[in-house]
Amino acid sequence: MNEHAVIRMPRALLLLPEGAEEMEVVITVDVLRRGGIDVVLAALGEAVPIRCSRGVYIRPDSRLVEVDGDFDVLILPGGAEGVRRLCASKLVGHMLRAREEADALVAAICAAPLALRHHEAFIGRRMTCHPSVESRVMEHGERGSGAVVIDGNLITSRGPGTSFDFSLALLAILRGEGLAATVEKPLMLPRG
Amino acid sequence: MNEHAVIRMPRALLLLPEGAEEMEVVITVDVLRRGGIDVVLAALGEAVPIRCSRGVYIRPDSRLVEVDGDFDVLILPGGAEGVRRLCASKLVGHMLRAREEADALVAAICAAPLALRHHEAFIGRRMTCHPSVESRVMEHGERGSGAVVIDGNLITSRGPGTSFDFSLALLAILRGEGLAATVEKPLMLPRG
Repeated sequence: MNEHAVIRMPRALLLLPEGAEEMEVVITVDVLRRGGIDVVLAALGEAVPIRCSRGVYIRPDSRLVEVDGDFDVLILPGGAEGVRRLCASKLVGHMLRAREEADALVAAICAAPLALRHHEAFIGRRMTCHPSVESRVMEHGERGSGAVVIDGNLITSRGPGTSFDFSLALLAILRGEGLAATVEKPLMLPRG
Repeated sequence: MNEHAVIRMPRALLLLPEGAEEMEVVITVDVLRRGGIDVVLAALGEAVPIRCSRGVYIRPDSRLVEVDGDFDVLILPGGAEGVRRLCASKLVGHMLRAREEADALVAAICAAPLALRHHEAFIGRRMTCHPSVESRVMEHGERGSGAVVIDGNLITSRGPGTSFDFSLALLAILRGEGLAATVEKPLMLPRG
């Protein structure tokens, strides 16, 4: 191995709108960082502490418009008001459609698959979402089964309680099943 | 019912030191607030955004020294550095011993039961903790089994992956099993 070789760690961009579901945000960031992923939490607007859906204030790492470079995955958390803001953002729509075309990873959980529908991205793909938005999402996508649905470069999941599975599935894709299993063990997830 | 009657919602005080495990903090706050609990996130030091164990910055609601009134439960999250700070705080030690004497609820997860040992509170009680600190914690307490161990006014749990069970168990104690089940359903936890 070249002594000057630089191993670039995978990078993840997680969108943090006001009203995002804080459990989905924090579980995903934390699990990915435990797995060595460079995660950037990007505010849709100003980089002030963002009020999440249950009143937890999280400080973003950056503003979305200031983020540069490539990311291996774009992650959209749920939360009704947060997803309304993801739908209202033209920049988010542009990013989603560009990633679909480039075959780049997009991950959306809970109500966030509504933003795919709103921005007309990933039409007809297999996906899952929170039951509360399922009838609307499934006008756009095909219903997949399980806590996490992977259809090519689109990864979707159901809600706060599936956030561990969602983030571990992302980690397995980005860094391999072995690393994901190593990160999972000390989390103490109750399994079967 | 008296038209002027005020139904006081249960109150929870969650300690937020630098280096706290952010999943344990946020899952617990979010689930309890979904259940109508008035949760105060209190910084041990200044009320600036607190850097948690994996670099998520959370803004506390208050400083611990400024919090007043009674709380139905005092909650200690894990995270190695956070727990070191819980151990180093004389105020935390005073609160733990006072609550033990008053038969008031204390809840500790992951490495946080180390703070019970350090402050000599709840000696000999049944408890659980993260496996990484088990040998030290069990010099102080009796090993309980399961993801959540309830021994009178002491509730303990194992790690990030048991935080849903931990917070739902607290909710069941504070507001009843029925309300806890209602809150649990839309979380989409993968069960059995």
